[in-house]
Amino acid sequence: MKPTKRQIIFKTAAKLFREKGYKATSMRDLAKEVGMEAASLYNHIQSKQEILSTLLLDAAKTFMVGIKEVEENNVCPIHKIEQLISLHIHMAVENSDAISLITQEWRHLEGNAFQEFKNQRKDYEKRFKSILIAGIEQGKIKKVNPDVALFSILSTLRWFYAWYSKKDGISIPELEQQFSEILIKGLQQ
Amino acid sequence: MKPTKRQIIFKTAAKLFREKGYKATSMRDLAKEVGMEAASLYNHIQSKQEILSTLLLDAAKTFMVGIKEVEENNVCPIHKIEQLISLHIHMAVENSDAISLITQEWRHLEGNAFQEFKNQRKDYEKRFKSILIAGIEQGKIKKVNPDVALFSILSTLRWFYAWYSKKDGISIPELEQQFSEILIKGLQQ
Repeated sequence: MKPTKRQIIFKTAAKLFREKGYKATSMRDLAKEVGMEAASLYNHIQSKQEILSTLLLDAAKTFMVGIKEVEENNVCPIHKIEQLISLHIHMAVENSDAISLITQEWRHLEGNAFQEFKNQRKDYEKRFKSILIAGIEQGKIKKVNPDVALFSILSTLRWFYAWYSKKDGISIPELEQQFSEILIKGLQQ
Repeated sequence: MKPTKRQIIFKTAAKLFREKGYKATSMRDLAKEVGMEAASLYNHIQSKQEILSTLLLDAAKTFMVGIKEVEENNVCPIHKIEQLISLHIHMAVENSDAISLITQEWRHLEGNAFQEFKNQRKDYEKRFKSILIAGIEQGKIKKVNPDVALFSILSTLRWFYAWYSKKDGISIPELEQQFSEILIKGLQQ
């Protein structure tokens, strides 16, 4: 299906926000890149802020829907963590520009969108930590500090998009297997 | 020993660069925070750029000296990685402001300092990767993709300072033990 003008605008904006930063990207830059008059952009979108908040809240929603599905799966916590690693890898490979905004440009969200994004992130982390704690309680995960474990996994998954953009020749299944192995089972033989 | 004026200026600059960013910090901000006239600052330092490059190249040097020491230790690669985890944790706890500049503000380095910093980082990563590869060859580390393993460890260690600044109640020995456990031995029971 052919993308709509609005979809093209969002996709192009994500790329520009990633390359130049949200603040340094003007509506004029965006119009030029999309091949429209700046004034015509406003037939499709309200503001630069609307674009940023839509991109970020859509990404946040995909992660929230994903983790809720994982929670409902009747599998052991280790397998749930594997599914979350896979979710992060797919998102970063398939929506690399939008995902890059999560680590850097979210600070430029304003008002409700800023609060909403922070709440979603907090909720996501809380749910991820609960899976780790369940794993510890069920004896599937070692008695580690769950905050250290959560930070350790998420710092890797959050910066994956930047690392991946400089790599080639690793398939998604291979990435899923490697990151699950390393993040869950560790390095030591 | 009482710190010199120059040391106070560097320490204060690191804090300001971290809080406001290098670009947004003026020499006037720095003079005010140190309690000097802006003109007098130049009796102690040459420029804002000199401060940034000194802070970053000093930190880079400490990491390079650290990894060279680790390389020379006659211990197994797993133990070398534990020593590097410990190096990162100590640096981040003891020089938190300067370390924060490594992930964010290094982009503002100019000329030779920019190149020098990038070379040092590349050299550090190469040495770290060699330790991982030696571990794989010696059968101490699983046959994982060494690039994935390196990225996974370093993404966690690089963002540790930011995570740590929001935590309390974890001692350095406990942090060393937890991060070594999680990054090397994994989560799975």
